[in-house]
Amino acid sequence: MTRIDPTSFRDINPGERLLMGPGPSDVPARVLQALAAPCIGHLDPYFLATMNETQQLLRHLFQTGNALTMPVSATGSAGMEACFVNLVECGDEVVVAVNGVFGTRMCDIVTRIGGKLIRVDGEWGRAIDPAAVEKAVKSCTPKVVAVVHAETSTGACTPLEEISRIAHAAGALFLVDCVTSLGGMDVPIDALAVDAAYSGTQKCISCPPGLSPVTFSPEAIKALERRKHPVVSWYLDLGMVRDYWGNERKYHHTAPVNMVYAIREALRIIAEEGLETRFARHRLNHRALVAGIEAMGLAMLVPEKERLPMLNAVRIPEGVNDARVRKALLTDFAIEIGGGLGQFAGKVWRVGLMGHSCRRKNVFLFLAALETVLKAEGFKARPGAIEAATAVYAAAG
Amino acid sequence: MTRIDPTSFRDINPGERLLMGPGPSDVPARVLQALAAPCIGHLDPYFLATMNETQQLLRHLFQTGNALTMPVSATGSAGMEACFVNLVECGDEVVVAVNGVFGTRMCDIVTRIGGKLIRVDGEWGRAIDPAAVEKAVKSCTPKVVAVVHAETSTGACTPLEEISRIAHAAGALFLVDCVTSLGGMDVPIDALAVDAAYSGTQKCISCPPGLSPVTFSPEAIKALERRKHPVVSWYLDLGMVRDYWGNERKYHHTAPVNMVYAIREALRIIAEEGLETRFARHRLNHRALVAGIEAMGLAMLVPEKERLPMLNAVRIPEGVNDARVRKALLTDFAIEIGGGLGQFAGKVWRVGLMGHSCRRKNVFLFLAALETVLKAEGFKARPGAIEAATAVYAAAG
Repeated sequence: MTRIDPTSFRDINPGERLLMGPGPSDVPARVLQALAAPCIGHLDPYFLATMNETQQLLRHLFQTGNALTMPVSATGSAGMEACFVNLVECGDEVVVAVNGVFGTRMCDIVTRIGGKLIRVDGEWGRAIDPAAVEKAVKSCTPKVVAVVHAETSTGACTPLEEISRIAHAAGALFLVDCVTSLGGMDVPIDALAVDAAYSGTQKCISCPPGLSPVTFSPEAIKALERRKHPVVSWYLDLGMVRDYWGNERKYHHTAPVNMVYAIREALRIIAEEGLETRFARHRLNHRALVAGIEAMGLAMLVPEKERLPMLNAVRIPEGVNDARVRKALLTDFAIEIGGGLGQFAGKVWRVGLMGHSCRRKNVFLFLAALETVLKAEGFKARPGAIEAATAVYAAAG
Repeated sequence: MTRIDPTSFRDINPGERLLMGPGPSDVPARVLQALAAPCIGHLDPYFLATMNETQQLLRHLFQTGNALTMPVSATGSAGMEACFVNLVECGDEVVVAVNGVFGTRMCDIVTRIGGKLIRVDGEWGRAIDPAAVEKAVKSCTPKVVAVVHAETSTGACTPLEEISRIAHAAGALFLVDCVTSLGGMDVPIDALAVDAAYSGTQKCISCPPGLSPVTFSPEAIKALERRKHPVVSWYLDLGMVRDYWGNERKYHHTAPVNMVYAIREALRIIAEEGLETRFARHRLNHRALVAGIEAMGLAMLVPEKERLPMLNAVRIPEGVNDARVRKALLTDFAIEIGGGLGQFAGKVWRVGLMGHSCRRKNVFLFLAALETVLKAEGFKARPGAIEAATAVYAAAG
């Protein structure tokens, strides 16, 4: 069993894809180039300077002055776990709003670490109702109120202002999942008084998966410092991690050097484009995509005002085979889109317009490809999808 | 504070280093090239095939038939945490042998997750004495006996055969840290009856840091399946992670796609070289380096028979400034070596000969550079270091 023929393994050659699923999104050549720069030591002066710059760029994207702002050395789900394990101790009451897979995952984590979960269930595919959160918050003494800004499983966007107010009125910390929203829409951490937030690199930041940007407010740090027990995870203990990312430069674990090169480059591209321009680009391409989808006679899952720009859940028409359509898009057009998750498995497609993938030419190609593939499925799309999308771009000038 | 001038950030350009510290080691161009291949979806058929190949190559390196063998999506310390959080439940007795920083870290993790720690302290810089482990094991009913094969903090190698026998005689699982040894010396998981092991990518595998290869024996999986409580970490719950790496392909978290490309390539290079050839190369360069070091009049920390080939702890001579020497090596020769950790801070240098860094030309360059730098420090090295190293290579033929 330990014998192996090394010649049976070929060179890595994934070919090209257009990544229009729920992430990863297309990674710009500049980011791949940065990723492949020579690896150096995690305590090398050049790398320490790179860490500082990465933090500056991340604060810019999070729109925050939070000192503790850095990429956790693992993917977005580890960022979720990092926020909870650092802020929640055994017995702490935690209100979690759930309207999809990622809110459900938050509940799972809270329970594993012994937090007392107060769960607010909202309809999947809809925004969370702040009144339901308020009711739950008043029924307990929550240390943390947690919500998913952009539910990747459904494409629903939950506005944060009101829930932030409710959390703070109750003296709780406000914890936000912005895995899918960060880099594609406004996530102003300080203005929204968010105390802890985490994201991923592979959505609207358009960097390969592998890191999770996290930011903690001074209040969250106080909670961390006031803990009665050590954080249950050594790896994600931000009290130690920040001694490495902060001025102490105390060795904790070996940073994923090349991934930090990559996120720095991806964040630099974002800074060059400018946040407002980038967010407007996401809104515009989203509107054009939706116009095309609806012109075809397909329907969106989420009501218009609650839709995310970067993640578009499209209802699969009656009689159309989910897996076959996705396979044809991948095989014939090299386009990846996502299937539904949880209660929406087989019911919706998730079409991403994230970061570098979010471009007019991709909207056009996707609409044309989908029309072709649906035709083979026996579904006759109404004509005019491209025209409808074009009209949106024309109106935007 | 959120204003930023994007033009103030330059292109990533770390320049070249010779990485002869405790890791990361030099990454071959082929691995960097694989790392920069286009990112594709974590459920793309090509990527799933890449995962399978990565597992095959990892099993070859671990010399195991263990089905559950894959890279955890975070650095080596997360691999350590993954092994403990999956196998240890609150109240379980765990014997940990400590002869350096990484054994100490194991104890920290066991305590955080509520394990009952039985600590066996050995001298730092020496192998663990199996008799001491046996005594501890007999004093309790351990579920797990854990040991660090290659202590990166000191360069000491602990043989595993005897401790494995002791662990199994007590009915315990045998857990091994092979972060620094895997890929540079023999770590035959099945032959040694190791139940759980973790490593890192950035040592003798010569891939950038970011993943942690882990392997679990069928016995370890049984323990995982017999758990009374959920694993405290959602991210590292191998019961779920293996449903993604196994045939189910059930989505858990988004795999770090490009890092998986990279480790696959690094493992392919290892398979091409062949394990025995690679281990012999590490032994030979180690002997040459030590011959040169000792010829200069410097002393090794670890007794000859307990030394690791890939991590060489050299005592800093009286009156020589640790930081200044390392800085001069880095600045004047672009060579990175490591300082001491814990009780050896300021007392030793840690010189790595790991994976791609472990080459004759590097041994020669390092010896010459160290001699030059020590001279500037006022330490007069005895002549003949290069000659002594050359003699070792000559004798090896």
